[in-house]
Amino acid sequence: MQHQTMGYDRTATMFSPDGHLLQVEYAEKTIRLGSSSVGMVCSDGVFILADLRLVDKLVVASSAAKIHEIDSHIIASIAGIMSDARVLIEKAQILSQQHRVTYDSPIEPESVIKEISDLKQQFTQYGGARPYGAALMIGGVANKKATLFTSDVTGNYFSYHANAIGENDEKIKEKLREFYKRDLTIRKGVKVALDIFKEIQGDKFNLERFELAYVPIDKEKIERVIGEKLKEFHVEKKKD
Amino acid sequence: MQHQTMGYDRTATMFSPDGHLLQVEYAEKTIRLGSSSVGMVCSDGVFILADLRLVDKLVVASSAAKIHEIDSHIIASIAGIMSDARVLIEKAQILSQQHRVTYDSPIEPESVIKEISDLKQQFTQYGGARPYGAALMIGGVANKKATLFTSDVTGNYFSYHANAIGENDEKIKEKLREFYKRDLTIRKGVKVALDIFKEIQGDKFNLERFELAYVPIDKEKIERVIGEKLKEFHVEKKKD
Amino acid sequence: MQHQTMGYDRTATMFSPDGHLLQVEYAEKTIRLGSSSVGMVCSDGVFILADLRLVDKLVVASSAAKIHEIDSHIIASIAGIMSDARVLIEKAQILSQQHRVTYDSPIEPESVIKEISDLKQQFTQYGGARPYGAALMIGGVANKKATLFTSDVTGNYFSYHANAIGENDEKIKEKLREFYKRDLTIRKGVKVALDIFKEIQGDKFNLERFELAYVPIDKEKIERVIGEKLKEFHVEKKKD
Amino acid sequence: MQHQTMGYDRTATMFSPDGHLLQVEYAEKTIRLGSSSVGMVCSDGVFILADLRLVDKLVVASSAAKIHEIDSHIIASIAGIMSDARVLIEKAQILSQQHRVTYDSPIEPESVIKEISDLKQQFTQYGGARPYGAALMIGGVANKKATLFTSDVTGNYFSYHANAIGENDEKIKEKLREFYKRDLTIRKGVKVALDIFKEIQGDKFNLERFELAYVPIDKEKIERVIGEKLKEFHVEKKKD
Amino acid sequence: MQHQTMGYDRTATMFSPDGHLLQVEYAEKTIRLGSSSVGMVCSDGVFILADLRLVDKLVVASSAAKIHEIDSHIIASIAGIMSDARVLIEKAQILSQQHRVTYDSPIEPESVIKEISDLKQQFTQYGGARPYGAALMIGGVANKKATLFTSDVTGNYFSYHANAIGENDEKIKEKLREFYKRDLTIRKGVKVALDIFKEIQGDKFNLERFELAYVPIDKEKIERVIGEKLKEFHVEKKKD
Amino acid sequence: MQHQTMGYDRTATMFSPDGHLLQVEYAEKTIRLGSSSVGMVCSDGVFILADLRLVDKLVVASSAAKIHEIDSHIIASIAGIMSDARVLIEKAQILSQQHRVTYDSPIEPESVIKEISDLKQQFTQYGGARPYGAALMIGGVANKKATLFTSDVTGNYFSYHANAIGENDEKIKEKLREFYKRDLTIRKGVKVALDIFKEIQGDKFNLERFELAYVPIDKEKIERVIGEKLKEFHVEKKKD
Amino acid sequence: MQHQTMGYDRTATMFSPDGHLLQVEYAEKTIRLGSSSVGMVCSDGVFILADLRLVDKLVVASSAAKIHEIDSHIIASIAGIMSDARVLIEKAQILSQQHRVTYDSPIEPESVIKEISDLKQQFTQYGGARPYGAALMIGGVANKKATLFTSDVTGNYFSYHANAIGENDEKIKEKLREFYKRDLTIRKGVKVALDIFKEIQGDKFNLERFELAYVPIDKEKIERVIGEKLKEFHVEKKKD
Repeated sequence: MQHQTMGYDRTATMFSPDGHLLQVEYAEKTIRLGSSSVGMVCSDGVFILADLRLVDKLVVASSAAKIHEIDSHIIASIAGIMSDARVLIEKAQILSQQHRVTYDSPIEPESVIKEISDLKQQFTQYGGARPYGAALMIGGVANKKATLFTSDVTGNYFSYHANAIGENDEKIKEKLREFYKRDLTIRKGVKVALDIFKEIQGDKFNLERFELAYVPIDKEKIERVIGEKLKEFHVEKKKD
Repeated sequence: MQHQTMGYDRTATMFSPDGHLLQVEYAEKTIRLGSSSVGMVCSDGVFILADLRLVDKLVVASSAAKIHEIDSHIIASIAGIMSDARVLIEKAQILSQQHRVTYDSPIEPESVIKEISDLKQQFTQYGGARPYGAALMIGGVANKKATLFTSDVTGNYFSYHANAIGENDEKIKEKLREFYKRDLTIRKGVKVALDIFKEIQGDKFNLERFELAYVPIDKEKIERVIGEKLKEFHVEKKKD
Repeated sequence: MQHQTMGYDRTATMFSPDGHLLQVEYAEKTIRLGSSSVGMVCSDGVFILADLRLVDKLVVASSAAKIHEIDSHIIASIAGIMSDARVLIEKAQILSQQHRVTYDSPIEPESVIKEISDLKQQFTQYGGARPYGAALMIGGVANKKATLFTSDVTGNYFSYHANAIGENDEKIKEKLREFYKRDLTIRKGVKVALDIFKEIQGDKFNLERFELAYVPIDKEKIERVIGEKLKEFHVEKKKD
Repeated sequence: MQHQTMGYDRTATMFSPDGHLLQVEYAEKTIRLGSSSVGMVCSDGVFILADLRLVDKLVVASSAAKIHEIDSHIIASIAGIMSDARVLIEKAQILSQQHRVTYDSPIEPESVIKEISDLKQQFTQYGGARPYGAALMIGGVANKKATLFTSDVTGNYFSYHANAIGENDEKIKEKLREFYKRDLTIRKGVKVALDIFKEIQGDKFNLERFELAYVPIDKEKIERVIGEKLKEFHVEKKKD
Repeated sequence: MQHQTMGYDRTATMFSPDGHLLQVEYAEKTIRLGSSSVGMVCSDGVFILADLRLVDKLVVASSAAKIHEIDSHIIASIAGIMSDARVLIEKAQILSQQHRVTYDSPIEPESVIKEISDLKQQFTQYGGARPYGAALMIGGVANKKATLFTSDVTGNYFSYHANAIGENDEKIKEKLREFYKRDLTIRKGVKVALDIFKEIQGDKFNLERFELAYVPIDKEKIERVIGEKLKEFHVEKKKD
Repeated sequence: MQHQTMGYDRTATMFSPDGHLLQVEYAEKTIRLGSSSVGMVCSDGVFILADLRLVDKLVVASSAAKIHEIDSHIIASIAGIMSDARVLIEKAQILSQQHRVTYDSPIEPESVIKEISDLKQQFTQYGGARPYGAALMIGGVANKKATLFTSDVTGNYFSYHANAIGENDEKIKEKLREFYKRDLTIRKGVKVALDIFKEIQGDKFNLERFELAYVPIDKEKIERVIGEKLKEFHVEKKKD
Repeated sequence: MQHQTMGYDRTATMFSPDGHLLQVEYAEKTIRLGSSSVGMVCSDGVFILADLRLVDKLVVASSAAKIHEIDSHIIASIAGIMSDARVLIEKAQILSQQHRVTYDSPIEPESVIKEISDLKQQFTQYGGARPYGAALMIGGVANKKATLFTSDVTGNYFSYHANAIGENDEKIKEKLREFYKRDLTIRKGVKVALDIFKEIQGDKFNLERFELAYVPIDKEKIERVIGEKLKEFHVEKKKD
């Protein structure tokens, strides 16, 4: 609070006396205001499961999608300021296209997250603009290997076995640490993720709210499942 | 209020401690000061119905039009600061012309809303300028499909079945959620919209205040109806 | 007042919490400090009648003219900061010349007002400069049609049947709404305008103070009448 | 005073709540701190008479001249910050030379004042610099016509029959309104100007303080008279 | 504290009255918030041992690596803001590649640290950006000589026999001064470093937390050892 | 004082309510903190006599020279911030060299002072830099004529018969007004200047402190006299 | 203190009411926080003797050197912010190399100090950056002449017979004024310098702390002596 009165939190380019960048930390809060998505690397591919919350009836469903196709082998979900996120998604899509045109081969998912993260870092260091208020989760398959990355507001990123961004991210990650196993198939992994959402959302849980996209290692092509069709993934519980 | 005293609301590029962009939120208020318009995707096309309020007798009516032709197959209405809106409309018109010149084909309505929204996003992130104080609703027909988009102050946009911008937008949207059906024809849809305005405006309701523009799927060309001629759409009530 | 203490009115690029651009509103006040002019579209052309107030004897009368020739078929009057206005008039003149040189045809009056208004809008959105403190009224004849436009400080503009800018603009417009008719000839229209000024100025009314310029539809060339010669227009009252 | 506390007078690009540009008004005060000069259009040419006040004995008289040659047919005097004024004079001289080189003909005095005034206007509208603290009076002969112009701090200018800038400008102008006549010869006009100075300066009046430059219509070439030689113009009183 | 109230600590480009750059000093604090790493020049090469702290199970271990390969003969570890550090590492990698391409020979480790330090210095002197909040330790072998460099926030750097950055750096350096000898082999040097960590971390010490990379003089190629495999280095105690 | 509290004196580009540029006035004070020099146009040339005060024994005397050679026929002394002054001197030297190269003739002293003064004026009008804190005195001979110029902080300049800058400049100028005559030879002029210094400095007067440079009209080449050799000029008193 | 409250010391480009540049004065304080070095022009060359204070055992001694080779005939020492100093040293080295490449001859030491000082001056006049917090001492031999220069924070410089920068500079200079003689040989001069350090440092004096570099006139090549080897210079006392 005192640092607020002293004004250390007014620009992204000012350190507080204890070495923090407060504007960047504020921007991180905006990310937890957004709806959440979970990503997971599985034995047979990578998936992202996004919570769409209650979609306004007036909005065309496909338009409110939270999971975007970066390239035919890469999916991404975002949390935070939606216009910022949209801009980052577009930049990622252009990067991928340019890579295909230049090298005649698909881009590696890490190249995408790295370029976007470099851009984000610059907006936390240079004045005259604000940091992007958006976290980015990218999943993809390249060279028969599935990978999942998450980039935060500062422009730092890691490769994850499984991760969550947005609302309740810490609670979800705690559950993931408990239930995630490296040998899960996409089918079982989605089940795990839905169970976690069910536990956290309680009565508000509803398969209709969710959107799933995954990239199987063998096909290297995105597949999408929405709403009711997710049941197939959820009931499986007893089958397994 | 405290955030105001602390100055977190002075520039569009500063986050408040709870992760908000207050200047952007203030700009959003300016939009609700403008008169409203309703757009709707119908089975046979898309229309926008705009409330012109009381037009000054001294102003040439066509000059006070709220619905603009972006291209022969795309219409747009705006809410907010009129000079900002005019500039965005002009940019949209130029985009469409450039597309026709470059590709010899009509631009897709989503390309228009995307470019304009990207521009808007930049004005919320970079310093040295203020965000555009204008919301934009775009309706059009391309490839035998009618679409309707709305872009807010931040540069986010969605595709809508039906939507409203400007004064009383929330009240109108509530009614739209109740009465909108996907199989409405333009004729019936306009009737629904006028009825909603009638209910909200009460004694002030008057067909003279309204301006209608629509793009039928079969013709892909804008048609316009103003003032008294709207009666044809409104009386229909009993006919249907 | 509170918004002043909080500093929301210090730059043209800051929104107040209720969505206003206060610096722009302040700039609008400067326009009402200037002397007024009235414009009118008539059956046989368009005219602008400007009040010169008391012209300093030491100033060369033609130099204090309030009505400027933009091109041989377009006239303009201004209200507000005179140096800003002069600069805008010069830009309008250059636009017209460029149009003639490029297309070998006279520019349309609306193209002029649109370009100038776009420029004005930019000065209300970008930092590092202040808005132009000037309103612009433009009248002209093109393609056998007389038109009158007025652009405000924000860069918004409309086409008018008749309008007033500067001191007492609202009072004059009220009278115009009462007495203006679309079938007035220039001659009768000027009479109406002078009568309005007479009523508002009372004892201070004096034909010597006024300057008239008009563009008849048939000739598409500006004609000017100053001072005593205006009597011909004013006495007409009894004749008609 | 309140506007000062609120800070509306800190930059030239901020409007006060009542529509004033206070920094520009402050700059105008600096002009009245300078010594005065009087210009007059006469039947046989145009002259400027400048008060040099008490010139420091150590300064070379010609170096303290207040009346500058812009071109062989144009003279100028200045009031305000002397370094600003000098820079504007140099710009005017360069303009004139460029005109001669480009068009092989002398520049019109109004072109000079217009260009300089445009420059001044920009410095009242754009940030990052301060307005020029200088008024400029330009007199010249072109096409057998003598003209006199004065440009203020804002970059506004008029053509004058006669005018004064600097210290006591309002008092001098009052006298000019009384005694100036359009048929005065340069000789008689200078007499009128000197008499006005004599009345205002009282005991401090001294022909030695003054500097005269004029451009006769027939010759279109500057002539200069300094100090004692001015007697010829002053004694004339009885002769006429 | 008083200097804070007076605002001397608000930008990196302002000296306090006693000649300090407070923003730069704040940035230095951010470095001590990061986990630590130790570097050492040994008789047979150079190594860096980094503490990874507790790595989140969800993060792919290799992705959380603290020791980066700049080129096949140069390793680097960082402390501070991770996104800043990542950007500096990437710049160092590009420098090395460019050197190979341009001169067809490996870059010298000192050239790398010098370029990066020059960049850092600029960010403490020029406005419009903040200093990099990262310290960089670089070790490498060139021309049969092992070297170790550390660059601080200001862009100053030294060549070290042994050094530590990050959390507890001063405590570790105190121990290094006591136990470091120039004739230590990498094997023994790592043992010394692990013992120091053990003493400082107490119960929290765990070989699993550490990451080791070294460049033997004879091979001039990086080798890496992680987690359990470090035991081989630690038990050696008794063997020697 | 009140203007200080109100902040009118914080940037060189802000006018105070009474039309002053306070930062420029502060910069002028810095000039009176420097040691003084006297310049004089004599019947046989021009000289500058500079007080070096007590020169540190450790400094190489020639390096502490106050009188600089701009070109072989032009000398200059400065007062104020020494690094600013040095930079201006260098610019003047470069100007002179460029003139020789371009026109194959020596530059006129007034061209030098004018260019330097234009530069100074810009630094009082544009933001983002501070005014040069240095006054410049230039003396030279061209076309058999000796001239002396002084430029102040604002970038204004005059031609002088004799002048002083730096510490006690007003006292010295008062004496110069009393004792300077246009027919003084350099020899006698220097005597006058030394006598003035003697009177003002009292016991502290010492020929050793002074540095003399002069340009005789006949030779158009600088000659220098330092310290003891000045006696020749001073004893002359009785001789004359 | 009052000037601090009023904020005159916040940017390097603001004059205080008494004509000081306070930020520049603060930067000068940072120089006295650094360790000191002494330079001396002797009959047979020039030397710089630098106090290294207590060098951290972990730092490679050569890396902590205070005396840098600018070119084979020029040495330099610095005091102040070490990263700033390093950058200035690098610029000086590049200047020298460029001179050799361009003119195929060694650069004069004064050209080096002049260029560096010009750069420093700019950083005290232009906004958007801070002044370099470093003093520079340069010694060299060219054309059989040894010279020594020192440049301060403002970018002013002098040629010195002998000088000191850094901690206790004033005390050392006082002693130098007492003991320096122009006919000292390097050998004797170093003895003088060491004796001065011994007197000032008392018990803390230790030959190990010092670093010596000198350029003999006959060889025009740098020679270096460190630590114990300095004894040869110090014991000489009795020999002489």
